Amino acid sequence: MSPRPAIRPGGRSARVQQSVHTAVRELQAEGGDLTVPRIALRAGVTPSTIYRRWGDLQELLADVAVERLRPETPPADLGNLREDLEHWATDFLEEMSSPPGRSYIRDALAGDPDGGNAGQCSAYAVEQVETILRRAAGRGEHVPATDTVMDHVVAPMMYRILFRPGPLDARYARDLVATVFYRLMPLP
Amino acid sequence: MSPRPAIRPGGRSARVQQSVHTAVRELQAEGGDLTVPRIALRAGVTPSTIYRRWGDLQELLADVAVERLRPETPPADLGNLREDLEHWATDFLEEMSSPPGRSYIRDALAGDPDGGNAGQCSAYAVEQVETILRRAAGRGEHVPATDTVMDHVVAPMMYRILFRPGPLDARYARDLVATVFYRLMPLP
Repeated sequence: MSPRPAIRPGGRSARVQQSVHTAVRELQAEGGDLTVPRIALRAGVTPSTIYRRWGDLQELLADVAVERLRPETPPADLGNLREDLEHWATDFLEEMSSPPGRSYIRDALAGDPDGGNAGQCSAYAVEQVETILRRAAGRGEHVPATDTVMDHVVAPMMYRILFRPGPLDARYARDLVATVFYRLMPLP
Repeated sequence: MSPRPAIRPGGRSARVQQSVHTAVRELQAEGGDLTVPRIALRAGVTPSTIYRRWGDLQELLADVAVERLRPETPPADLGNLREDLEHWATDFLEEMSSPPGRSYIRDALAGDPDGGNAGQCSAYAVEQVETILRRAAGRGEHVPATDTVMDHVVAPMMYRILFRPGPLDARYARDLVATVFYRLMPLP
């Protein structure tokens, strides 16, 4: 991610960020052409404020996309690891494979010469998976490594979303979780 | 992929495609700004020829990227499935994680509202994997399903390349192949 000025919550910088992000989301929802002048007008800032802060339209869209992909709540706690992982994976697949999900992933990857925005998306997933695994370990359950879940549950879902167009259903997510449970668990 | 006129090999359409692709690759290698007028000038065609055929710069870059990602030779035949898969996976990882590989993948994903270009990249990988599996089955070896290799070898490599910036080495590719061999083989 490009270095950005530190944002003081409630400061002018935070207010600019919020109003520009809101303007982008509104214009996206309206389906019109996205241009820096239109976004600036809607946000009540000058185009040069946007260029100074985000560099160009693509980086701004990537920033908005990463923000949209940030999970809003911790993963549900259903009382056991298998169900927690299944629930999280089916939700993740549904969200990421929806038309808005796909377009956010695309935006995050596009405005990203150094991989920072995409890295942030994956960091969100790692965080959610680690929450699930930590809770399960706390209940005394046997747990796989975080990377096993990332490589064999998250990666196959994202690869299919991006590279293998076709229908994807909850059963696919559950099958990947079952593969981790029945094939890829470390020995106790 | 957008519908394109069928290309008669040796016809004018094929010559235009070749000279435009060559112009893009030369300009990319020189590291200059890529614009449709510059590409047209180098290729000896008019800009409107490019717009008519490819729609816009992003779609043209995606088309060139997919062409660059097309494997030039069938996978090496080392006499057994394990070595064939290891060899192919380490080559694939090295190529795709190189700076040009990453930028082709990015281009293929960017100019791709309907997922067709990215689908073509994945179709190339499926084809290579199927060649390896078919050869092994012909030798009487026990083989995994194509989708097992796509989901648990190809997908984790591509996910790390795109979403988890960091060093990736041949050992990672070989470990994924070992996981398929020791954990994910179907019963004979």
